[in-house]
Amino acid sequence: MKGELKGDRVVMGSDAVEELYNVLYYGRLKDDTLELALVEAAYLLDREKISVDSNGRSLSFRDLFIEASHLQEYFELKYIVYRDLRERGYYVQPGVTDFRVYPRGGKPGVTASHLFVHVVTERKPLPLTQLISNLQAAINVRREMALAIVDEESDITYYGVKFQRMRGGMGPLDVEMKKGVATLMADRVIVWDQGMSLQLHEKGFYGNMLDEKRLQLSLIESAYLMKKYGLAILDTQTNEPLKLETFIQKTRTIDRDFEGKLKVYEDLRERGLVAKTGFKFGSHFRVYLKIENIKKIPHSLYLVDYIENGHVFDLPDLSRSVRLANSVRKEMVFAFEKDGAASDKGGIASDSGGVQYFSLGRIKL
Amino acid sequence: MKGELKGDRVVMGSDAVEELYNVLYYGRLKDDTLELALVEAAYLLDREKISVDSNGRSLSFRDLFIEASHLQEYFELKYIVYRDLRERGYYVQPGVTDFRVYPRGGKPGVTASHLFVHVVTERKPLPLTQLISNLQAAINVRREMALAIVDEESDITYYGVKFQRMRGGMGPLDVEMKKGVATLMADRVIVWDQGMSLQLHEKGFYGNMLDEKRLQLSLIESAYLMKKYGLAILDTQTNEPLKLETFIQKTRTIDRDFEGKLKVYEDLRERGLVAKTGFKFGSHFRVYLKIENIKKIPHSLYLVDYIENGHVFDLPDLSRSVRLANSVRKEMVFAFEKDGAASDKGGIASDSGGVQYFSLGRIKL
Repeated sequence: MKGELKGDRVVMGSDAVEELYNVLYYGRLKDDTLELALVEAAYLLDREKISVDSNGRSLSFRDLFIEASHLQEYFELKYIVYRDLRERGYYVQPGVTDFRVYPRGGKPGVTASHLFVHVVTERKPLPLTQLISNLQAAINVRREMALAIVDEESDITYYGVKFQRMRGGMGPLDVEMKKGVATLMADRVIVWDQGMSLQLHEKGFYGNMLDEKRLQLSLIESAYLMKKYGLAILDTQTNEPLKLETFIQKTRTIDRDFEGKLKVYEDLRERGLVAKTGFKFGSHFRVYLKIENIKKIPHSLYLVDYIENGHVFDLPDLSRSVRLANSVRKEMVFAFEKDGAASDKGGIASDSGGVQYFSLGRIKL
Repeated sequence: MKGELKGDRVVMGSDAVEELYNVLYYGRLKDDTLELALVEAAYLLDREKISVDSNGRSLSFRDLFIEASHLQEYFELKYIVYRDLRERGYYVQPGVTDFRVYPRGGKPGVTASHLFVHVVTERKPLPLTQLISNLQAAINVRREMALAIVDEESDITYYGVKFQRMRGGMGPLDVEMKKGVATLMADRVIVWDQGMSLQLHEKGFYGNMLDEKRLQLSLIESAYLMKKYGLAILDTQTNEPLKLETFIQKTRTIDRDFEGKLKVYEDLRERGLVAKTGFKFGSHFRVYLKIENIKKIPHSLYLVDYIENGHVFDLPDLSRSVRLANSVRKEMVFAFEKDGAASDKGGIASDSGGVQYFSLGRIKL
């Protein structure tokens, strides 16, 4: 069967419709011809199912491949992923996020596709807004969403992307906040009263014991306890209680993302979850659904990173975060603050508050 | 026993020498008195071994702790680490990189310390130059070097730091480079000749097969093969072979660290190692000692990241890299180019070439 390269399509004659379209589900019908996308044409040419002419000359696979790379940005990446999906036995159609993939046993025109795939190279930074708008596009038509990241050596890693509902089982804290027993040191707070230390630690899993008598709180925990429960924290210089604004101002010089992280921390606590530092995992928080007994700490299910609304993912970094989370059997979750404008425009779905969560995890296709 | 806070020391009377110094190895003798560092004094005060006066007033632990935090930067971190080491049963003395630690069973004045510990907070960026100069200070007196990183919640992670000798078992490549069979696409190179593709892939573990007939090379591999073995790569626009300089110039727009990474890649290959992309691990390279048979790829031992000479480590990032490497049983290695000035000044040890390697790994004390 012979086709003709026209623009960024290969147009086949009506003789191709029966086998390629009706039986093998390649291409789209246009009048009585069949139009193939460049990836489809290259794949079929390599398998010697078709030949492709351009200006009266028959193209080799190499000719078509190079020609296609001029006609379509990142053609070679899309080809690598298209080929991989086809070789795994999936039917694939071009779609708004690069490809629509049909479930095993499913067929274009007969069943619905189940997955939207977006192809990216590890070298190109990926804006959060683009990731979310692709995810939203998939969700709007009730499809799942996957990123196919192609690395330097053309290995493909597939990541499933989904919005994440966060819900935990911790109730509000019931601890009497004594005055004059907590001090701000350089970048942490120490609680000097043994009774209050033990209660904060045991009832709410706040802080870490410095020794048997004294508790250390992180700056985030301290700010939350000040704001929500009126914890009083003394300045070491003046021995006077710090105002919340002054405290936050001081922390901002230590950690410029402090307020964003605090917003996520607050949101997690309000949802009944326990967030602790994720430093050992290189992320902002590790998150527990519930801690009933300080002596039996359960597995933390999530690693959560706060990202800015305008965040741009570096893909090797993203890959490392997700891989690490998965290696310790946790989900890698990203949290950002929705702004009014973005949700008006893009309609970012959410179940409460101003913080949106989504997770990325490696998937096997 | 009673001591007096003087400057950033606590001075004990001669009655303290016998028990604190001769038996328990705290402090340093000065004439017939014993001088304690602030961490030592706070630790002994908490254990009610001593009392500490300042201006005729007896200090509580809290008083001394807050006072000390004004006298010594990051006192609270150093205290946390000092306490941890002591509780683990080590004798510890103050030293040039914060602490000198004595091996179990060893004692100050009797045996030598074996480990230099440098204490850092996760929040403070760590310059490469500082890390290397501490490592060098330890090596100069034949000690090991560890970083004690204290996180937000005052958990300590100890990392061993050491220079790394890199040696592999691969010989030089013996492949005939045909002309006109390799093309630069957007960010990768495709070799169209089946024979050459298979030889490059099987003899040197270069690239990744696109399909049964064609090989994809990464930009780094391509540049190395051009430079060292004269691989000819065609431009898709002109169909002419690219000059090495033009090729490198093109890659620089895709990856601004390209030349640094290429230098490390070359050095690794020249040392007989096989470096492949470490993308899936979020690092620049995964490195094999030797690959004899492409069908039986062994475990890669190292993850290697190129860093600039003036690099400053973000500690949560560093923690994530090391943790991920260790979770897949690899060593996390960093590689930087020594510059003449730095090695004149600091004497950065090296066994060859212009690239210096060092590794970081979590250690249990």
